[in-house]
Amino acid sequence: MSDVLVIGCGLIGTSVGMALRAAGWDVQLDDISPAGGGRGVRRGAGRPWEHQEKADIVLIAVPPHLTAAALLAHQRLDIGATYTHVSSVQSHVQQEVESWSSDPSVVVGGHPLAGRELSGPGAATSDLFAGRPWALCPGVGTRPDAVQAVSRLAAACGADVLQLSASAHDAAVALLSHLPQVTSSALAACLVEGEPAEDREQLRLAGPGIVDTTRLAASDPDLWVQILELNAAQVAPVVPRLAQQLTATAEALRVLAAGAAPAAAEAAVASVRELLRHGNAGRDLVPVKRGALSAAFAPLRVTVRDEPGRLAALLGDAGAAGVNVEDVHVDHVPGRATGVIELLVARADVHVLADTLRARGWTVNDPD
Amino acid sequence: MSDVLVIGCGLIGTSVGMALRAAGWDVQLDDISPAGGGRGVRRGAGRPWEHQEKADIVLIAVPPHLTAAALLAHQRLDIGATYTHVSSVQSHVQQEVESWSSDPSVVVGGHPLAGRELSGPGAATSDLFAGRPWALCPGVGTRPDAVQAVSRLAAACGADVLQLSASAHDAAVALLSHLPQVTSSALAACLVEGEPAEDREQLRLAGPGIVDTTRLAASDPDLWVQILELNAAQVAPVVPRLAQQLTATAEALRVLAAGAAPAAAEAAVASVRELLRHGNAGRDLVPVKRGALSAAFAPLRVTVRDEPGRLAALLGDAGAAGVNVEDVHVDHVPGRATGVIELLVARADVHVLADTLRARGWTVNDPD
Repeated sequence: MSDVLVIGCGLIGTSVGMALRAAGWDVQLDDISPAGGGRGVRRGAGRPWEHQEKADIVLIAVPPHLTAAALLAHQRLDIGATYTHVSSVQSHVQQEVESWSSDPSVVVGGHPLAGRELSGPGAATSDLFAGRPWALCPGVGTRPDAVQAVSRLAAACGADVLQLSASAHDAAVALLSHLPQVTSSALAACLVEGEPAEDREQLRLAGPGIVDTTRLAASDPDLWVQILELNAAQVAPVVPRLAQQLTATAEALRVLAAGAAPAAAEAAVASVRELLRHGNAGRDLVPVKRGALSAAFAPLRVTVRDEPGRLAALLGDAGAAGVNVEDVHVDHVPGRATGVIELLVARADVHVLADTLRARGWTVNDPD
Repeated sequence: MSDVLVIGCGLIGTSVGMALRAAGWDVQLDDISPAGGGRGVRRGAGRPWEHQEKADIVLIAVPPHLTAAALLAHQRLDIGATYTHVSSVQSHVQQEVESWSSDPSVVVGGHPLAGRELSGPGAATSDLFAGRPWALCPGVGTRPDAVQAVSRLAAACGADVLQLSASAHDAAVALLSHLPQVTSSALAACLVEGEPAEDREQLRLAGPGIVDTTRLAASDPDLWVQILELNAAQVAPVVPRLAQQLTATAEALRVLAAGAAPAAAEAAVASVRELLRHGNAGRDLVPVKRGALSAAFAPLRVTVRDEPGRLAALLGDAGAAGVNVEDVHVDHVPGRATGVIELLVARADVHVLADTLRARGWTVNDPD
């Protein structure tokens, strides 16, 4: 009898095992491929599962379209007291469980929102879920003690547990994750249209805006086809909202390009301004750093000589100021004598840090 | 007689002055507000302009919609041999100059693509243009020596000079800068629709994808209304391309959500997969680091104790490995014992760096 049996030793399963082991839990691992299971064991994520041993919690960490089948298959073996999973889409698993499970009351859907676009067990880390949201989506008939058990597991991984219905979860990720993915892919796809030779030369004019907005477009198509298919009911209605806003903006720009009469031009400008202002308002709602809004942070830019160790020395001096550096951007130019390093710190700390660094001889640009 | 007279002491004008001063040029500054001019002088961007003194090059660095008027007004004073500007939209300035200038042959449109979304003269730095593209857009009648003079100016600022027609420039920035801005604003605007109370709670599920894709949505609406209005003729045709892709994807998802017959479902899945694959192909075209494509770099993730100085020590050890760290991401969790630091390095260096750091006792996750 172990505390938890993790089925699937990919990034999420392996990271869960490592996190729970670090918290003192007894973890067993299994994977459809012996190599995968062995790799999880070598990463220190747990011990191999003996196929008859029972566990308090069985956690299914396989791709979303296989989750329901794997969960039901393991529940039929009657090897756990409580069952959970980590699917990025919840409703389809819940429907399968409620249709086919011998006891849906001990199944609690879960979705840990891991941070960066990591992939593979090699990227697993015991801290993957630290401070991240972990959504639990119990059904109407789920037993409270089952929810508590899975909640303890998520908390032991360091996550912030929140509880919402499967449909509310799927609507939220449709807007916050699946719509951005579709948008980023469609935006990047616009770059491959048109006359290639001329366009490639013009791509030299690419700046950080297109880099950031198309980063998600590098995602794995096979995984994302699954996710979008499984959450099609929630994603389908939000994509047209965005398409309509773009179409209205295109029409306003067309009016302006055509040299419209003053009243029509004024209305078109007002429409474009409204889009940009709504964009400001929407951006203000986005938590940029683990729950904190962007207004809470400010950048400080320091011009440094491009020599090994200068960044380390800068961060050493920032640490001496007692200021937490939340993020660092290095604007590196190969072959240049100097570069700009941007430190993201709490807005309240930016002037203290600027003064400290200046006193230590750094070339600090005025904080905004 | 100075080498260059900079009109407008905002971020760009002040940075140009600082860069040219660092390269040994004699720079004079003027601004519509005495305070602005004084601030530029205090930043070391040049000396105040005596209103009769002449300059080899007059550089107009005022907002895009004021650029043509300011350029023509200064050319009427006959104070320069060559005139240039830094407008992010080129064709409208060129048209005004060709219509109204006493000598359009000495006017060379220019657009330095400054890096991050900095703003204000306080953010000015002599390195703002280092390694960045600086587009020059001469007209058909522009004198070659005028183009050479402005090209020398841009090169003295450390920029990579490229030459293209005003209309090719405006088409390129429509696709690479203005379309991403409109897209990011429209995506963020989707977050302010719907039922506010429920949506705000669900915003806790926001991950890095929505953070990156909506970053541009924080841009200044007043500036962007101008830019989009001035380049409406080029932006208007590209926005519908994106809207059409989104509409087609929404329709495919609607088919999947409705539980279509196998042939229709298969076609819908193929359509979604094609979008994602085109997105991959488009992303591969984007230079993520000053001309280098994303495939040239790889991330290395290191788990560290969250103590002051650990990041500095890590970067010190990376420097000792002789590996250039191109970018750093700190995944900081307040109150946690450990965190993950991601170092972006040339793909060829990633294994060397991993080995070196491991040998020095760091907990390195397997490189991808």
